Amino acid sequence: MAVYTDVGEEELGEFLAGYELGALLSFKGIAEGVENTNYLLHSTAGYFILTLYEKRVAPADLPFFLGLMGHLASRGINCPQPVKTKAGTALGELSGRPAAIFTFLEGVSVRRPSVFHCEALGRALAGLHLAGRDYKLHRRNALALDGWRALADSAGARADSVTPGLAAIVADELSHLSRNWPNELPRGVIHADLFPDNVFFLADELSGLIDFYFACDDILAYDLAICLNAWCFEPDGSYNVTKGKSLLSGYVAVRAMSGEELFSLPLLARGAALRFLLTRLVDWLDVPAGALVRPKDPLEYLKKLRFHQRIGHARDYGLAA
Amino acid sequence: MAVYTDVGEEELGEFLAGYELGALLSFKGIAEGVENTNYLLHSTAGYFILTLYEKRVAPADLPFFLGLMGHLASRGINCPQPVKTKAGTALGELSGRPAAIFTFLEGVSVRRPSVFHCEALGRALAGLHLAGRDYKLHRRNALALDGWRALADSAGARADSVTPGLAAIVADELSHLSRNWPNELPRGVIHADLFPDNVFFLADELSGLIDFYFACDDILAYDLAICLNAWCFEPDGSYNVTKGKSLLSGYVAVRAMSGEELFSLPLLARGAALRFLLTRLVDWLDVPAGALVRPKDPLEYLKKLRFHQRIGHARDYGLAA
Repeated sequence: MAVYTDVGEEELGEFLAGYELGALLSFKGIAEGVENTNYLLHSTAGYFILTLYEKRVAPADLPFFLGLMGHLASRGINCPQPVKTKAGTALGELSGRPAAIFTFLEGVSVRRPSVFHCEALGRALAGLHLAGRDYKLHRRNALALDGWRALADSAGARADSVTPGLAAIVADELSHLSRNWPNELPRGVIHADLFPDNVFFLADELSGLIDFYFACDDILAYDLAICLNAWCFEPDGSYNVTKGKSLLSGYVAVRAMSGEELFSLPLLARGAALRFLLTRLVDWLDVPAGALVRPKDPLEYLKKLRFHQRIGHARDYGLAA
Repeated sequence: MAVYTDVGEEELGEFLAGYELGALLSFKGIAEGVENTNYLLHSTAGYFILTLYEKRVAPADLPFFLGLMGHLASRGINCPQPVKTKAGTALGELSGRPAAIFTFLEGVSVRRPSVFHCEALGRALAGLHLAGRDYKLHRRNALALDGWRALADSAGARADSVTPGLAAIVADELSHLSRNWPNELPRGVIHADLFPDNVFFLADELSGLIDFYFACDDILAYDLAICLNAWCFEPDGSYNVTKGKSLLSGYVAVRAMSGEELFSLPLLARGAALRFLLTRLVDWLDVPAGALVRPKDPLEYLKKLRFHQRIGHARDYGLAA
């Protein structure tokens, strides 16, 4: 949540001259998107988001992300749509960075999702999975099993400085998941980071999804497992089975899940918990002493992992049999 | 430039219920204002800025600031106007902080002001001084001579760690300014921080002034001296006499300056340079090791101070005799 790149009005003017957006009226850096710099643009043509891609996003992945947003929008998913230049391209360069302009999406993200929000999210996630089926581009999930192993190696024994025994817990879990990962489940485009801050609501209706910069090809039900982790636990770490039931029943109302997918849900939820535990752990260990930005607590996801390890069946998440 | 306070949608909803702003459509933290947290609010009534006052702004000063913005706006100065609640108040509380909503001002700040921008700024600054004449509330300038002494004491000998000899330069300058400060010059409400990021332009017209949180009672020509420092030097540290001439002639075209004011301009410019040298110096010395936020370079203002020390007469700034 920061503005990493300061764009001057002159270079902005040159950049905007490539678009049919009329005259610039205002231009403000906004605190949205962990990975990129975002500006809210107001021109005589309306409101837009200008995104500058910082180093955590690989330029080679941008055609996948931008194409996906266009693809999903054309299939009725409310998400930011890349605005094309007069020359018909969606991706340009500004301040030495890849940059693109998107349509502005109204809506407000919820900090404490309710049962209602979870149900709406489930439906939207399933809709996203269906809409992504015929997307032609592909992107490997860099944060799948291989990526988790690399993160665990990077943390190494330092993990124990966060909580004693964590390095061994991570190693055991990795080994369990490697042996049992359900690679044969239905795959497709997943969002892979659909946390509450990436979902907008307007007057209690889900109004859109944003931030597709972790999107990739992976097991569809793994995306649902990520949401189960991100939406259905209370601040005290307890699992809210009513929210879980809402999320899952919203999802299956739009996209039916196979018996294998349901059977694997606890394992996928363990994987999802480990993925966020590991990225947070590495961020936590790598933060310089005295830094003003406090990274997110990795132990929140250790608690979630412990919870999923004790789950025997998808019905324990609240799904009606 | 940061969002210090994270406002949840529930408390925001309660806060907004006190206003006649219709339904909330979107809500984004924006990177504007060094001292406060700002959100861009879009409701069915339009676009607004929500400001939460962080600890660097004294709550006791808020009636002065908010009243001033209302006063200036009623006299034709384009600046954000506080929006009143249904109960008729402009100041409320949100997330445990004083908070207020303002009208949204279109415009874009310029990073590299041109001669044209300097002339427009001079006119706007003089207009601000005239419009503020009958403002009833008062606020002492906490960053005048007394405040500079306190900052110099706080930096102490550590100043020399930034550049050798700086502590003595600061002490000598303080002593010179204390003996010669032109306290008898015309006073009134000054902006006191009218840097380029606080001035908006639209299609080459000055469209508004923002960020009044250093405004106070002080010598009017001192405000002009601050602008001379902030607008008329090039990135390489050289003074641009054409820009200076434009700023000054724009100012005097709207508000005539007395011979005493012109005579004192070099001294006031030294004071203004010392003020920003000192606040930047203390920020520089106080920043924790490894912090991600890099403070502004105090030495930029040492160079400017050195320049003003060599100026004999206001005409050397470019003003026609």
